[in-house]
Amino acid sequence: MEARAMVLEAFNQPLKEKTFPLPRLEPGWALVKILVAGVCGSDVYMHQGLDPRLKLPMILGHEGVGEVVELAGNKAYVDDGSPVKVGHKVLWSRGVTCGHCYFCKIKGTPSLCLNRWVYGIHLSCAEPPFLTGNYAQYLPLHPRVDLFRLDDRADLEVFVPASCSGATTAHAVDLAGIEPGDSVLVQGPGPLGIYACAFAKDRGAARILVIGGTEERLEICRTMGATDLLNRHSLSPEERRRLILDKTGGLGVDVALEVVGSPEALKEAISHTRIGGACVTAGFGEPHGTMELDCFHDLGRKHLRLQGVWVSDVRHTHMSLSLTKRREADFKKIITHRFKLSQADQALKVMASKEAVKAVIFPHD
Amino acid sequence: MEARAMVLEAFNQPLKEKTFPLPRLEPGWALVKILVAGVCGSDVYMHQGLDPRLKLPMILGHEGVGEVVELAGNKAYVDDGSPVKVGHKVLWSRGVTCGHCYFCKIKGTPSLCLNRWVYGIHLSCAEPPFLTGNYAQYLPLHPRVDLFRLDDRADLEVFVPASCSGATTAHAVDLAGIEPGDSVLVQGPGPLGIYACAFAKDRGAARILVIGGTEERLEICRTMGATDLLNRHSLSPEERRRLILDKTGGLGVDVALEVVGSPEALKEAISHTRIGGACVTAGFGEPHGTMELDCFHDLGRKHLRLQGVWVSDVRHTHMSLSLTKRREADFKKIITHRFKLSQADQALKVMASKEAVKAVIFPHD
Amino acid sequence: MEARAMVLEAFNQPLKEKTFPLPRLEPGWALVKILVAGVCGSDVYMHQGLDPRLKLPMILGHEGVGEVVELAGNKAYVDDGSPVKVGHKVLWSRGVTCGHCYFCKIKGTPSLCLNRWVYGIHLSCAEPPFLTGNYAQYLPLHPRVDLFRLDDRADLEVFVPASCSGATTAHAVDLAGIEPGDSVLVQGPGPLGIYACAFAKDRGAARILVIGGTEERLEICRTMGATDLLNRHSLSPEERRRLILDKTGGLGVDVALEVVGSPEALKEAISHTRIGGACVTAGFGEPHGTMELDCFHDLGRKHLRLQGVWVSDVRHTHMSLSLTKRREADFKKIITHRFKLSQADQALKVMASKEAVKAVIFPHD
Amino acid sequence: MEARAMVLEAFNQPLKEKTFPLPRLEPGWALVKILVAGVCGSDVYMHQGLDPRLKLPMILGHEGVGEVVELAGNKAYVDDGSPVKVGHKVLWSRGVTCGHCYFCKIKGTPSLCLNRWVYGIHLSCAEPPFLTGNYAQYLPLHPRVDLFRLDDRADLEVFVPASCSGATTAHAVDLAGIEPGDSVLVQGPGPLGIYACAFAKDRGAARILVIGGTEERLEICRTMGATDLLNRHSLSPEERRRLILDKTGGLGVDVALEVVGSPEALKEAISHTRIGGACVTAGFGEPHGTMELDCFHDLGRKHLRLQGVWVSDVRHTHMSLSLTKRREADFKKIITHRFKLSQADQALKVMASKEAVKAVIFPHD
Repeated sequence: MEARAMVLEAFNQPLKEKTFPLPRLEPGWALVKILVAGVCGSDVYMHQGLDPRLKLPMILGHEGVGEVVELAGNKAYVDDGSPVKVGHKVLWSRGVTCGHCYFCKIKGTPSLCLNRWVYGIHLSCAEPPFLTGNYAQYLPLHPRVDLFRLDDRADLEVFVPASCSGATTAHAVDLAGIEPGDSVLVQGPGPLGIYACAFAKDRGAARILVIGGTEERLEICRTMGATDLLNRHSLSPEERRRLILDKTGGLGVDVALEVVGSPEALKEAISHTRIGGACVTAGFGEPHGTMELDCFHDLGRKHLRLQGVWVSDVRHTHMSLSLTKRREADFKKIITHRFKLSQADQALKVMASKEAVKAVIFPHD
Repeated sequence: MEARAMVLEAFNQPLKEKTFPLPRLEPGWALVKILVAGVCGSDVYMHQGLDPRLKLPMILGHEGVGEVVELAGNKAYVDDGSPVKVGHKVLWSRGVTCGHCYFCKIKGTPSLCLNRWVYGIHLSCAEPPFLTGNYAQYLPLHPRVDLFRLDDRADLEVFVPASCSGATTAHAVDLAGIEPGDSVLVQGPGPLGIYACAFAKDRGAARILVIGGTEERLEICRTMGATDLLNRHSLSPEERRRLILDKTGGLGVDVALEVVGSPEALKEAISHTRIGGACVTAGFGEPHGTMELDCFHDLGRKHLRLQGVWVSDVRHTHMSLSLTKRREADFKKIITHRFKLSQADQALKVMASKEAVKAVIFPHD
Repeated sequence: MEARAMVLEAFNQPLKEKTFPLPRLEPGWALVKILVAGVCGSDVYMHQGLDPRLKLPMILGHEGVGEVVELAGNKAYVDDGSPVKVGHKVLWSRGVTCGHCYFCKIKGTPSLCLNRWVYGIHLSCAEPPFLTGNYAQYLPLHPRVDLFRLDDRADLEVFVPASCSGATTAHAVDLAGIEPGDSVLVQGPGPLGIYACAFAKDRGAARILVIGGTEERLEICRTMGATDLLNRHSLSPEERRRLILDKTGGLGVDVALEVVGSPEALKEAISHTRIGGACVTAGFGEPHGTMELDCFHDLGRKHLRLQGVWVSDVRHTHMSLSLTKRREADFKKIITHRFKLSQADQALKVMASKEAVKAVIFPHD
Repeated sequence: MEARAMVLEAFNQPLKEKTFPLPRLEPGWALVKILVAGVCGSDVYMHQGLDPRLKLPMILGHEGVGEVVELAGNKAYVDDGSPVKVGHKVLWSRGVTCGHCYFCKIKGTPSLCLNRWVYGIHLSCAEPPFLTGNYAQYLPLHPRVDLFRLDDRADLEVFVPASCSGATTAHAVDLAGIEPGDSVLVQGPGPLGIYACAFAKDRGAARILVIGGTEERLEICRTMGATDLLNRHSLSPEERRRLILDKTGGLGVDVALEVVGSPEALKEAISHTRIGGACVTAGFGEPHGTMELDCFHDLGRKHLRLQGVWVSDVRHTHMSLSLTKRREADFKKIITHRFKLSQADQALKVMASKEAVKAVIFPHD
């Protein structure tokens, strides 16, 4: 049996459709039929050759949901321990960690595992098991991959972003330490920012302010729980500053979440954070420049906590999935564009142009 | 000028309506006109003489909201630092702490302050300033009382429980350490249990199970976020056990919140908590008997965290108030009975019989 | 090649010396020569048949240090990632966890892994690889076992308790949340209690009080950092109470660590804990009876945090090992009795009688 | 009765000795005879006019210990609640907070209180009670000042730095989240850095590396617990980098504490921090320039936690005092220079030149 996949052979060039044999599963492996694959903003950067982790040729795609079609041995779901079965709809952890290093075992932060690798990023498709990214019809899953079950009647595409954007945002929000009644600023209403609004509401934030440039995205944020939408095209930096101070008793926000990945946005996020507050940035997945900090005013006197966030653990996927299940209808709004597998290049284009909030691919359509 | 108040002169006897002079305010004091007073479950116990802290004669009532009618000097709101002004609608912290003991200054737990006293509990009305409980028309507030402003158009009665039941529940939930996606059991759908459901939802709990005996109260819990209602009259202990295991992957809940105050309920709550979970009890405001723990099965092997909760801090009132503001319409359902000041005995009766979820008194009607 | 081991064939009967073949290592496995094995207090209970986890025949012994003599593939140390090599002196994690369940991946508490198994406890020696406990000359280590390197010149026997007693105590102390300047009570000056004193000092406790019945053990506690020794044979419960209140400003201790495993000791530990303090119990490794709690006085009004502790994670072994390395000379005092492999029964006897603080076995003497 | 004090009338000019009347104490106030005053590094900056908080004329000095000579009413010690009495040796909190703002009551971070003022910094000596700094013979203490008792036989000068440098370092270390077994880097072996070494040891750090430029100060750090001394005059930045990686398994340190207050030192501290580690800076008490951060490499990919620290709370003074009491002999080494009150200018000079680690003044000699 064979599977089609879109292969990245050269950066900035169209992906090529190729066919690969389905592997014979070694003990512990599982095979999933990919029902919906997600196109992540970082896929765009990878396609442009900006991510040093890639080895060409390779298959992009680290977000996805699918159906279990083959199992080589018993496997249990990570969250409730029930057995994985053929026919189940599932979401899997995109990153695979070693389970036995300083980060996995001593520090409890497996997302920092030095041996971590991710489907659709670290593996070449030139070697078995070839099918190593989600822009494909099937994906053989390594024994150390963790699985979550989706409801048989779930609207599957809605859960695609939960596997990456949602999980990374869960990580950021977890580190932010939002307390009930807090004011929270979100910088950037893309998939991460939209999740950030929903998570902030889910932690009891009393006021959720979003700075963005697209009305449509800001409105999705409002659905998720944002109380104040600040369009940076209609409000000057000084107007934003005054509005935020006005809404926060003159102090600034308790927590700022920067998920744009631009030094200017981060700098502004810090400036809006109150004395003793936290500014968490999950936006920098790729190199994006430098930022100047005034050591006294921005750090010392401000007593600022500035936290960088790198990817996510399985437990953040659990949080993200739980949230998405509770608000399936709201998260449906994130999925703005749908493509066939052969249209993967178009999917990358609408993500690059920011025309799409989230584009997904149906590999079997 | 004078104010009417209902005085407790002898336990288990009807309260007596008396009139007291309004005091001349010393510097730092404020005078509020009590617009709505709450009748707390613990008021019933106090009326029965079960609380050793009381000195008769005294005025019951530690829950309430009102209007600032006089200020002796400047005062700022504790949450946003804006100035308190005559005419503002306000809620105040019921407990007054010293600010300078081991609990206030070293351990950051002022609710445990050894010098803490509470309006409507610790003070006799035989000494100035006489008016020291909320079953009265006016209340002079000590300089160390902290104030929160309510919206001029707020439905004031809704905020009454936020000052005690809500704040104590915020304390319990804060110590419970609920993580997004957790399963939470609430034992007892009274005012605390109803707040517990809303707070659990506010912390991202995926499943909120409530055990109670009154359908009406269980239904209010559903409004607040409860996903599973377990009526203890229709489900046997064994049926409850099986249902809870069924909903939690066979493990039991991540967090149990016991707010009934009965040893049997607490024992059951512990039994439903998973290995490594947390069982938090905020129900024991008065002596209520003992409970037997199996040191190995309930504690050691279970790796249980069992946390008792005593009253609340100002920051919990902030959390409680923030939640109530965001869900004003839902919390309206808690207020089931309304009385005039002269009917305070009736208010105590409907609380004692559990006919009321929360009874309130309008001292100026 | 063969290895001698002491086999438990029937409870309460002398162990039998048997010989087993050394296994051919599958990929990922390692073989260690056991240089020193520890005799844990729980071994005594297992020998008596009080631990339901055992399957006879089996080889006792879950504490130990040794030398790597064979490796089937590459392996890295869990703490610094450097390569494990033949000839290295090592300590290994006694418990093996699945790495993929709710406790391992979602909750970050692998010590609660439902699939966890421990050398010297869960495995029978009737099946390959036969050598599954430390009362033996060699031990084949499963690929999921984590290793820590010991210095070539280390006094190896000193590190034996670090693998179990020390790690469990590290877990308890970690959960206790000791803050610099705190007062800490330790109930029971056995290996866990001695470690507890050292850890409490290591966390900046200002006052460390120990209740015990043996002067020699209490004196070891003093070496470790105890400031006050309370011999329960010379001080009545009331005298202990008064002394502890006297040393803690009348409040009781901030943190109590119960590591005896008797309900009476735990009850006393709770009684000595201050309002809002934490009482952590790591003493109940086996069923030991029940304890009555006054729900109001012991829990509610006391705002107590009562935490049970079950075994330990690899990160606790890291903490325990780090502490032992820094105080090698002090911890030498714990090792009071040394035996040959054939004398394992005698080792169990001196542990049962409490004549020994810690007995160790040299399997190659 | 009168008291002598050294007054700052003009920046960069010699202090002038003046005489002030002792005030009649209002209720709640206390009068202390200053037995030893400390000269803080920030006093040097204030003398140079670099601190915008000053109003001339004023009396410098916010570190000190003394003896209670008069009390207007009852007062209890903040840590154990026992009564303050005339004749007691005491240390007091240098900062006075309002106890009723967002930071004091809601967020539990009184060090950020917007109404906080400090003896020797915020008050002018042109208004009553005139004596408002520690470069003086007596100090009237406001009712909201918190007191700690010192032993009658304590070597008083040793406790002077505990009231400021030690408390600020306690704050930084508390936020650092050091775990037992961690590696810790300290940047700058002044009074804060020396305290940082002692606190890191007190938290169970396995390796404590210090970067400094003065052998004498580095040696004091060794006494306190430093395991590796890196003299920046003899080791190049690249040599320091290699040495630190070598000592930390190639990862960098778990925690870096920057207490120099130079952007270059902070930048280097960040570079030595491992992925997922924490870099805490308590060095910036005054404006000292800016630092460039690479948003991807220093923050995002690094998953860095960067925490600024501003002054300290009373609970940090408790931690600092507890540590100093336990290691009185070691901390004696910090006090390198002693002066009479009239020699205060010389004391400032040896602090400015870094000839002194800590200079103290004896106002009654």
